[in-house]
Amino acid sequence: MTPLEAAELLKKHDHYLILTHVRPDGDTIGCAAGLCRSLRQAGKEAFVLHNPEATSLFTPYLEGLVAPEGYEPETVVAVDMAARGLFPDNAKRYLERVELTIDHHPSQEFYAKHTCLDAKRAACGELMYEIVQHLGPITPEMGEALYVAVSTDCGCFVYSNTTPATHRVAAALMETGFDPYPVNRRHFRTKSFKRLKIEGMLASGMELRDGGETALVFLTLDMLQQVGADERDIDDISAFVGQVEGVKNGITLRELKPGVCKLSLRTDPGDLNASAVCAILGGGGHAAAAGATVEGTMEEVRKAVLAAIETVRKG
Amino acid sequence: MTPLEAAELLKKHDHYLILTHVRPDGDTIGCAAGLCRSLRQAGKEAFVLHNPEATSLFTPYLEGLVAPEGYEPETVVAVDMAARGLFPDNAKRYLERVELTIDHHPSQEFYAKHTCLDAKRAACGELMYEIVQHLGPITPEMGEALYVAVSTDCGCFVYSNTTPATHRVAAALMETGFDPYPVNRRHFRTKSFKRLKIEGMLASGMELRDGGETALVFLTLDMLQQVGADERDIDDISAFVGQVEGVKNGITLRELKPGVCKLSLRTDPGDLNASAVCAILGGGGHAAAAGATVEGTMEEVRKAVLAAIETVRKG
Repeated sequence: MTPLEAAELLKKHDHYLILTHVRPDGDTIGCAAGLCRSLRQAGKEAFVLHNPEATSLFTPYLEGLVAPEGYEPETVVAVDMAARGLFPDNAKRYLERVELTIDHHPSQEFYAKHTCLDAKRAACGELMYEIVQHLGPITPEMGEALYVAVSTDCGCFVYSNTTPATHRVAAALMETGFDPYPVNRRHFRTKSFKRLKIEGMLASGMELRDGGETALVFLTLDMLQQVGADERDIDDISAFVGQVEGVKNGITLRELKPGVCKLSLRTDPGDLNASAVCAILGGGGHAAAAGATVEGTMEEVRKAVLAAIETVRKG
Repeated sequence: MTPLEAAELLKKHDHYLILTHVRPDGDTIGCAAGLCRSLRQAGKEAFVLHNPEATSLFTPYLEGLVAPEGYEPETVVAVDMAARGLFPDNAKRYLERVELTIDHHPSQEFYAKHTCLDAKRAACGELMYEIVQHLGPITPEMGEALYVAVSTDCGCFVYSNTTPATHRVAAALMETGFDPYPVNRRHFRTKSFKRLKIEGMLASGMELRDGGETALVFLTLDMLQQVGADERDIDDISAFVGQVEGVKNGITLRELKPGVCKLSLRTDPGDLNASAVCAILGGGGHAAAAGATVEGTMEEVRKAVLAAIETVRKG
């Protein structure tokens, strides 16, 4: 459905619960916060389901919005959630009763009753901006939340998913009146001491292949423990490897628990299709950024990824 | 004068030479390239004066545009040049005959016959976009050059000078049809493999003091040799330590040769006076960024810096 149709649907229902995805990022949290505030302003009851994995980088945007224990919603909305597998444990009970999903992933599984999908959008926040516009004026708080959604998902207008529309939405959001610099500083210009230590470890263990066009980094549980790093310290860590001069395919392997690794693959546009590679390993995503959760040791998953890349390259 | 008036003036004259400032950045180079191409498209003869300090990061944008030896212009235009002191040596002969200056610095000295100034613009490129619009269609090459100007001067839409207008100009420039991702990657997301290794080493050896408000990093000759890094790999390396969350005073000690260290000190505005600290050690600079070259081993210089900070703090 179109943003206008989604807005009409949102006007009709009430008593909302908004869901965010596992390992929540700025897009899912910012969208949830922006939508929740917009619904409340439109006279609705609305809450965001507590996401136990939300880090202190993003929880401030949810202040006053998290659903109290025992809240029984009438209408469930999922934001930036492409797949059933992305529902946090405490959200799984709502899997069969999502009224509306708002998303920008081409890998959307259409698990909800209604889906508002625009895969050309850099961020779900771009689409959310179109929707909440129809629900009422956008306050600075909503503007800030949606700006976080938009800017974090395109690396502050650096990534290849950034379009003219992304910039225009950012301009409109800035005009709602919040102060964008503290937000930019917080998300794009500050690193924790632990983050820098982790990046240092990734750099020292980096593997370069294909004459430097493919780079792999390995983030182990041991490294996290050694530094005492938490989720916040490794937010968007899969972008790290892509910054190396000459690298077209950046592979980040993260040990989630012994025997399970998370693969993130970022590729140059027009080069290797990241989504196709990750699909072979049971994952999905976009052509230039995709991921998969794979069983096996770091070394096993490393071999599996390299084999999957070969398979896709051979067509 | 307004952008429209500047465009009218540019239409009237011919045989252009465009000047860029000392230590040229993306804004001055991008503006010069964009304007030069626009003037040529409008049927004029136009060149950019060779800037001996332009690095390989920016020279590609000037390909085919640099004035040949002995070119005698009729009309001289300066872009992004606030002051007489910013004229490169080979541009000084044109100081008294600049027909038009296009600039966004509040410190503009009004040395030219005509000045088109808008100090509210994040980049001179924003203003240049308004001007060349009136000279004819903006080609992808012009769009790319002006996008470089705009994006580099606002740290890719991160710095506090970024406005909604900055984003809207970026959107319009992207629509001219060049591919923005390689540009973003080149200017905002690329580090050499060696640079990353050095940063990793700095991070792993970082010393935090004063409850995390003061951070020290140590760059030894041994580290440079180990990685095989050269000057290009450690360009602006003293900014590295300042990005750590919570750090107000960032100290970089670099071993220049055995027994001689270079100290760089960056401090938060309003906090410790960096210049006063470095003056004690025989150096100087600004209140928020200063340096000194000090004789002694790394450990001796480390102690001397910490003592100098104590002295300044005690007043």
